[in-house]
Amino acid sequence: MLVNGQPTRTIWLDPDDPSKVCIIDQRHLPHDFKIIRLESLTDTANAISDMKVRGAPLIGATAAFGIYLALLSAGQENADHLLDEAVELLNKTRPTAVNLAWATRRCQTAIRTVKDPGAKIETALQTARDICREDIDICYRIGQHGLPILEALATRKPAGPLNILTHCNAGWLATVDWGTATAPIYQAHQKGMDIHVWVDETRPRNQGASLTAWELGQEGVPHTVITDNMGGLLMQQGKVDLVITGTDRTTSTGDVANKIGTYLKALAAFDNNIPFYVALPTTSIDWQLKEGSDIPIEERSAEEVKYIQGWHEDEGAIKKVLITPPDSPALNYGFDITPARLVTGFITEKGVCEASEGGLKD
Amino acid sequence: MLVNGQPTRTIWLDPDDPSKVCIIDQRHLPHDFKIIRLESLTDTANAISDMKVRGAPLIGATAAFGIYLALLSAGQENADHLLDEAVELLNKTRPTAVNLAWATRRCQTAIRTVKDPGAKIETALQTARDICREDIDICYRIGQHGLPILEALATRKPAGPLNILTHCNAGWLATVDWGTATAPIYQAHQKGMDIHVWVDETRPRNQGASLTAWELGQEGVPHTVITDNMGGLLMQQGKVDLVITGTDRTTSTGDVANKIGTYLKALAAFDNNIPFYVALPTTSIDWQLKEGSDIPIEERSAEEVKYIQGWHEDEGAIKKVLITPPDSPALNYGFDITPARLVTGFITEKGVCEASEGGLKD
Repeated sequence: MLVNGQPTRTIWLDPDDPSKVCIIDQRHLPHDFKIIRLESLTDTANAISDMKVRGAPLIGATAAFGIYLALLSAGQENADHLLDEAVELLNKTRPTAVNLAWATRRCQTAIRTVKDPGAKIETALQTARDICREDIDICYRIGQHGLPILEALATRKPAGPLNILTHCNAGWLATVDWGTATAPIYQAHQKGMDIHVWVDETRPRNQGASLTAWELGQEGVPHTVITDNMGGLLMQQGKVDLVITGTDRTTSTGDVANKIGTYLKALAAFDNNIPFYVALPTTSIDWQLKEGSDIPIEERSAEEVKYIQGWHEDEGAIKKVLITPPDSPALNYGFDITPARLVTGFITEKGVCEASEGGLKD
Repeated sequence: MLVNGQPTRTIWLDPDDPSKVCIIDQRHLPHDFKIIRLESLTDTANAISDMKVRGAPLIGATAAFGIYLALLSAGQENADHLLDEAVELLNKTRPTAVNLAWATRRCQTAIRTVKDPGAKIETALQTARDICREDIDICYRIGQHGLPILEALATRKPAGPLNILTHCNAGWLATVDWGTATAPIYQAHQKGMDIHVWVDETRPRNQGASLTAWELGQEGVPHTVITDNMGGLLMQQGKVDLVITGTDRTTSTGDVANKIGTYLKALAAFDNNIPFYVALPTTSIDWQLKEGSDIPIEERSAEEVKYIQGWHEDEGAIKKVLITPPDSPALNYGFDITPARLVTGFITEKGVCEASEGGLKD
């Protein structure tokens, strides 16, 4: 999508030097758009663990490029040994990211099957590129399947823009391009539809205020940042036509694990008869799990609640400030479970379906 | 309640100099406990408009002391004229605060009926003191009526503390002492009950993280700060036994206007069969309004969403940081409406009642 008017992706091979991989350092957004070059496996592992890149699909793609960089810097003789070490190192950077292990395993298998040591590097690069291309294609198709939902709702509106509420960042910054929840939004905007997005700031890490708002602004999509507390009132007032979120993991019965606070918005949408859709690649469905309550909930550092980072305008620098009494404890779970009964439907790369076991299997 | 181990109120006459009124400058909490002295009507008006003091009952009490300070500094001859000017000035400081106009009108009537010019000052002081004493009494009685609810729920728990979730600050800092939602909590704690409070940080102004957490910490009440997004998950996990909030205004049918985000917690409590109580003085019931949707919703500055204030530890100073792209618009409504159907009951100074027209009238 657009950054400063230029079509941009979240990760790409340096066109001037194919031994380097470019990423956006997302830690500085929305205040500073900084491109950095990864030159080694270590650079790549750090980029993932320091959260310069985040979002399951992007983490997978970055890891794949990390394996390519590892092989590139190594001699041809011990390539298989180095490959295994690289996979192990990368898998440790974000242990709960399912997509990361999937991507490294795919690279490992593809590279192993190549016998010619010289061709292994080429295969590593090709696999990383394939993963990126496929991710873009999946997100694009999620957009294509979601677009008719937006169009149908828009035709029912007598006046004004179609108002879509989204939580967290399920945008192109979490993928390679398009995003999941944002894909139908970007495609509607590019088609000239009159749309407006309510962006939940998404405490504690503020991915909505810092990433989603920035993405939408760069693409020229009308949007307004709101606190996570405000969506309920806007729904009561008839100012929300549709909710679309992403998901970290979805069970076989359609229960949705997504960023903490999603459940509250689903309750409010249900209470006000507003459609609540979840956009997802079918790979994020966990067929082993039936009940949402079986999904383990990641507990993150309390510091993320107690401190907030932002831009200090007078000093022109990013600063971190404490917002609680220093001695007050805080608790920080990463996501909650939205039961299938509150979900209107899933928008996947294969089509739109009901939030139920039958719907997902079809 | 306690501050640094000393029983403290939010407003009091300076014991060393009865021409000065002491308040806590709440803008610096929880980072700095600063007492300031009001010496004039202007000081008082500024304290209210600059939000050094906030919370309907405390604003009313402060205005009453402001009228006393106005008469004190004036000559005895033009007391009635000065009185009217003081009332007009004070009423303008927070035009939407119903309690403010009520307090100034009460002072005006009491002072006018006194014929002896010399006795007017004494009446002004007495009225301010009466308003404070009555507010403390109302809050204390809210606590007394709420306490049995907590005790009944605690006896049903096999183990562990009684977990109470609260939103915003309906604590003693918003009143003269005890608070409304916190009154049963403080009385339960003083009785030795095993309780724990989940404190919603309450974006955008973070009254929970900065004021409620500080109050509870000073009083020694176990508590944990959470983002506004987290209450739903905690309820799903069975970690919330009860929700108590305050209210800005309640309609005759029991619809509750309270700090933005309250409605989302009420929905989650209802979905998980958790009691949801609202603590209020009966004076905050608006008998003229039937439907919650008739309550005008205050729209506040978008800057409150875009910027967050906190303590920068390295620099030892309060700093304000931007958390959104500079060009992204933001919207900031102050409260939402929780329909009576989601409210288990009201805890008032007169007793506990059902959230309905019949319940309130009884």
